[in-house]
Amino acid sequence: MAAAAVFSDKGYRASTIQDIGRELGTTSAALYYYFGSKQEILGELIVRPVRQLREMAAEVAQSPLSNREKLGEIVRRHIDMMLKQRELFTIFLRERVELEAQHAGRLAEMEEEYYRQIRSIIDDAARAGEMRDVNRQMLALGIIGMTNWVLRWHKPDGALGADEIASAYMDILGGGAFKEPPGTAGATPVPAEAARRRVKRAS
Amino acid sequence: MAAAAVFSDKGYRASTIQDIGRELGTTSAALYYYFGSKQEILGELIVRPVRQLREMAAEVAQSPLSNREKLGEIVRRHIDMMLKQRELFTIFLRERVELEAQHAGRLAEMEEEYYRQIRSIIDDAARAGEMRDVNRQMLALGIIGMTNWVLRWHKPDGALGADEIASAYMDILGGGAFKEPPGTAGATPVPAEAARRRVKRAS
Repeated sequence: MAAAAVFSDKGYRASTIQDIGRELGTTSAALYYYFGSKQEILGELIVRPVRQLREMAAEVAQSPLSNREKLGEIVRRHIDMMLKQRELFTIFLRERVELEAQHAGRLAEMEEEYYRQIRSIIDDAARAGEMRDVNRQMLALGIIGMTNWVLRWHKPDGALGADEIASAYMDILGGGAFKEPPGTAGATPVPAEAARRRVKRAS
Repeated sequence: MAAAAVFSDKGYRASTIQDIGRELGTTSAALYYYFGSKQEILGELIVRPVRQLREMAAEVAQSPLSNREKLGEIVRRHIDMMLKQRELFTIFLRERVELEAQHAGRLAEMEEEYYRQIRSIIDDAARAGEMRDVNRQMLALGIIGMTNWVLRWHKPDGALGADEIASAYMDILGGGAFKEPPGTAGATPVPAEAARRRVKRAS
């Protein structure tokens, strides 16, 4: 992750292959040999977070969790991944504009696919009659937006972890988007700990 | 907004005072005279969106809207401002890392103040017994996050405007965070048009 550290610290434009080589303890010539250009390095780096998110969402989708629990688990693991790889996700969120067309297209496709994975769980829930009549596109985009925004306000020494944040988010979102289970007042928070155990068992 | 156009297009690091001068049809010498440095220009530029957001939130807070309507109106006007000033908000969301300590501190204070304005409406609603027992800090941050994220996915030629997006968001969030008015099933969407008229009348 030498390149991630350099791009995250100096910004893509101001970084040189030499900076990355220095961080890696290798020569620019060796890096050019493997990657061809700084743009190729960014192109490789920037899709990694989305690839991880997609793999994670696919795993959660196949778990035996309820639809609502699946959404909560995706939010929790998304936040957890971001907080553990701040540099990589910072590049993903900030340097996207620096991508040339080919890489930008690939990234957009992968992001679209992550959106569709979340959207698909929401659609399943709607078909099963579990949801209120909300705008499902906005719900999926809202979930992704409030989740990515955590990287902006969360302090590394902050008291709140991924579990607490995801649980609070899903308590708010879940209560608005899902119908209440009969006989309960207010929304049921997603039981994060229980959900995690079930995913673990299933995978 | 010559500087905003240049920073938004090339990124702050790669932009020079010469680029901004060219866009403005003036000399670098004149720009240095007024601003002293590229950093000063960014410092001036990057606080503008937050200053606008704060003024808007203060106006909405003093309006005769209900607490729930106030939140909906802030979300709507926040989105509207972003979509009308994409370059400025892009710089605000992307170039913050480029700020030196003095400007970064000022920006952080202003962002904190915008958060507190939203939080204060939420607290008023809670005190009035209008809300479910949700994490109010997370609700405020979630609202800001999903709202700012709109700039990332919204296409200039997109079918959805600020009204539709805010209304869908508040339908989802409002239903989760607020108690239902007695006798209604599901959340009541914020009547954006009516709310706007009432704010207009009040201001």
